[in-house]
Amino acid sequence: MTTAQLVEQIKKKQSFLCIGLDVDLNKIPEHLLKEEDPIFAFNKAIIDATHHLCVAYKPNTAFYEAYGLKGWKALEKTINYLNENHPEIFTIADAKRGDIGNTSTMYAKAFFEDLAFDSVTVAPYMGKDSVEPFLAFQDKHTIMLGLTSNAGAFDFQTKLVDGKELYKKVLETSKTWKNSQNLMYVVGATKAEYLADIRQIIPDSFLLVPGVGAQGGNLQDVCKYGMNDSVGLLINSSRGIIYASKDEDYAQVAAEKAKELQAEMAEILSV
Amino acid sequence: MTTAQLVEQIKKKQSFLCIGLDVDLNKIPEHLLKEEDPIFAFNKAIIDATHHLCVAYKPNTAFYEAYGLKGWKALEKTINYLNENHPEIFTIADAKRGDIGNTSTMYAKAFFEDLAFDSVTVAPYMGKDSVEPFLAFQDKHTIMLGLTSNAGAFDFQTKLVDGKELYKKVLETSKTWKNSQNLMYVVGATKAEYLADIRQIIPDSFLLVPGVGAQGGNLQDVCKYGMNDSVGLLINSSRGIIYASKDEDYAQVAAEKAKELQAEMAEILSV
Repeated sequence: MTTAQLVEQIKKKQSFLCIGLDVDLNKIPEHLLKEEDPIFAFNKAIIDATHHLCVAYKPNTAFYEAYGLKGWKALEKTINYLNENHPEIFTIADAKRGDIGNTSTMYAKAFFEDLAFDSVTVAPYMGKDSVEPFLAFQDKHTIMLGLTSNAGAFDFQTKLVDGKELYKKVLETSKTWKNSQNLMYVVGATKAEYLADIRQIIPDSFLLVPGVGAQGGNLQDVCKYGMNDSVGLLINSSRGIIYASKDEDYAQVAAEKAKELQAEMAEILSV
Repeated sequence: MTTAQLVEQIKKKQSFLCIGLDVDLNKIPEHLLKEEDPIFAFNKAIIDATHHLCVAYKPNTAFYEAYGLKGWKALEKTINYLNENHPEIFTIADAKRGDIGNTSTMYAKAFFEDLAFDSVTVAPYMGKDSVEPFLAFQDKHTIMLGLTSNAGAFDFQTKLVDGKELYKKVLETSKTWKNSQNLMYVVGATKAEYLADIRQIIPDSFLLVPGVGAQGGNLQDVCKYGMNDSVGLLINSSRGIIYASKDEDYAQVAAEKAKELQAEMAEILSV
């Protein structure tokens, strides 16, 4: 998918919501556990109920790998279901991968070719040759960790390197990499005011923003500091939507929660 | 597996060799492609031929994920084969994972419980709460990226933070984390002289050293600067062993290459 197609969807749906499909079998409604594939059954119901309210879905691979082969199969079914029924939706494999060159190419093939995701998240620690193999795929997007929303972000990401925070150094350096136009960035919403600085470095890139809702970020602030002329934001919510109800009405309640966020986004977009 | 058991194996086998099982279907002998599961068939033959010469095997998850469900199944069969037939061997899931707390716990479950690896590699960018969930597992080992062996290591890892290189900051900081005794570190062999500095910071930890052979590192130098009283080193070789021959004799040639390294290690251990 091209960035232009993503922007078109955002304008059409009046939404820049991404829903995180982080399925924990201990948290989904009990009646689903009787299904042959409870993870996919859960995802399918969530997708069916919310696809008109969001522009992206983001399964975090950890939640699938934890269930072994069954989990990987559920991930495959989920992405296939999305690509077949909602090809206009932007899909994100939240995998946070990164390895030396030829190995990163294998990861890129896993997510871009075998599973046919539109994008994958990657970690920057190993530098240029660990990320460029992902960037080589046309119309695919590589979403690199910039400033994350967890407490540990302050351990290294905000330390000063050459007089500026490491995450800013990461953002700046990545702009010099080959096919850097295929980069997007993860920027945590718990530090919305940092977004102004970040926009100085990467004014045009899309930002994937986790941490609105459950992790305490504020949508208005994120938009105030982070939005650009093409919107340039994907706001992720996982638990706040998919686990809003643990009863049989979980998909309906998820849709209500998604609708609340979408309505707030429509209002922001209308200004 | 405990660290003491690993050290015991090293002394018994006179080897601290780790063999990387990075199976690329384009690189294995052609006759294997007729097998039902070529990846596992390749791994099984390599393991059967080399298990007495090494103390650890390290499948890199990228090479399995790239083949989807079939790949994940081959990974599962490989680790099960190792645990059933060679429980004394230390197993490493080279996955370079890392995510926010509850998500890292899911990754830890995937590799320590579902697949029953002894250890997993992780990336440090997201800090303390992305690594500690792995450290909570008893007699399991978390091998964190310190200084990697690729060119991109110089993009961020060697930049100065508070007057010292980022990778040193990472090593130092990690020592303060809960259950840090379960940490080992990835340190690239292409910079053997850095090992002296690294040993100042983490004198007692095991180091997983990739990059001997194909990537140009020198075993003698690595041992000179990196060995401690408990040996404290696992030297990884992947391509130099498993792809030494592309013919039907591949397992035998792999064993010859492994034997060369093991003999060199035995000599170093005897001094």
